[in-house]
Amino acid sequence: MEAISLIGPNTEALLLENQDNFLVPADNVATVMYQHSLDHALLVLTNVGYSKIPVLDKDDRFMGLIGLNDIVQKMVSLTTIDTDHLAGLTVADVMEIGVDTVREDAALEDILHLLVNNAFLPMVDDQRIFLGIITRKEILKCTNHLVHELERQYLLVPKQPGGSDTETATDGLKVS
Amino acid sequence: MEAISLIGPNTEALLLENQDNFLVPADNVATVMYQHSLDHALLVLTNVGYSKIPVLDKDDRFMGLIGLNDIVQKMVSLTTIDTDHLAGLTVADVMEIGVDTVREDAALEDILHLLVNNAFLPMVDDQRIFLGIITRKEILKCTNHLVHELERQYLLVPKQPGGSDTETATDGLKVS
Repeated sequence: MEAISLIGPNTEALLLENQDNFLVPADNVATVMYQHSLDHALLVLTNVGYSKIPVLDKDDRFMGLIGLNDIVQKMVSLTTIDTDHLAGLTVADVMEIGVDTVREDAALEDILHLLVNNAFLPMVDDQRIFLGIITRKEILKCTNHLVHELERQYLLVPKQPGGSDTETATDGLKVS
Repeated sequence: MEAISLIGPNTEALLLENQDNFLVPADNVATVMYQHSLDHALLVLTNVGYSKIPVLDKDDRFMGLIGLNDIVQKMVSLTTIDTDHLAGLTVADVMEIGVDTVREDAALEDILHLLVNNAFLPMVDDQRIFLGIITRKEILKCTNHLVHELERQYLLVPKQPGGSDTETATDGLKVS
């Protein structure tokens, strides 16, 4: 089945004009291994200053996400907060699995939708090898570019509502 | 000095068409008071599941932000992680100050730029009373709407490059 894009070609081109910044490549992303201790993961997260980072296996396959919250929750019992509760636990025990990911050929459409509910999206290849992340921050940069350039580069002519012009213009598009 | 918007009127109208969801009002935002203990702030942050929340004073004035990271960093000494290090500290001791905020009449332009480097923006009135937050998530929703509707509602006619049309179109705009 052929995917039908609901995003117009001029819009997509403008949004992606600075696409070299779109993906944060794996080399620039802080990660932990799933067999690492939670103590170690806590130190990594604290050092990098992010609230959530990807979890990989020894072959760089994407396994899930781990956040400061996941770890601190393990430290909190009914009335006390104690790092002793972390003893013996690994990243694999608390990481978030079933995380939304995208492939290299993901449609902009899908990326934008998934980023509404995810602060970032891990990108993986067909072996689940971790390639990097797409962040809301990078999309925000592209959105800035789009909204600034749109009416500098194009004259926006309203389409006739309900008329035959509209029929032609939306030809091939499925409007939900 | 009059502010010159670099975002075209049709673009802005489309982006803000669902604006009722733009601001997350103060009543729906988890906050802590600046004189609260760090133990308390840690429990609040863990319960709400956010990595960073606003800090208010007793009159609901916005004072800064506090994140899980700020607190965990206080727990970490050279070789150990211990909640004992939190004893006696309050939110005011570790919160982030000098945070970017916006007013109710903020230009979309400024909001979009500030959100590139901030996951959310506190909105305050002229007494610094906290009104709520604008999040990247809400902007992503609006971006989705914009890119889906743009070429359904408008025909994009390229402006003449290098011609006098362009001169007119960019009149008054400073292009960096």
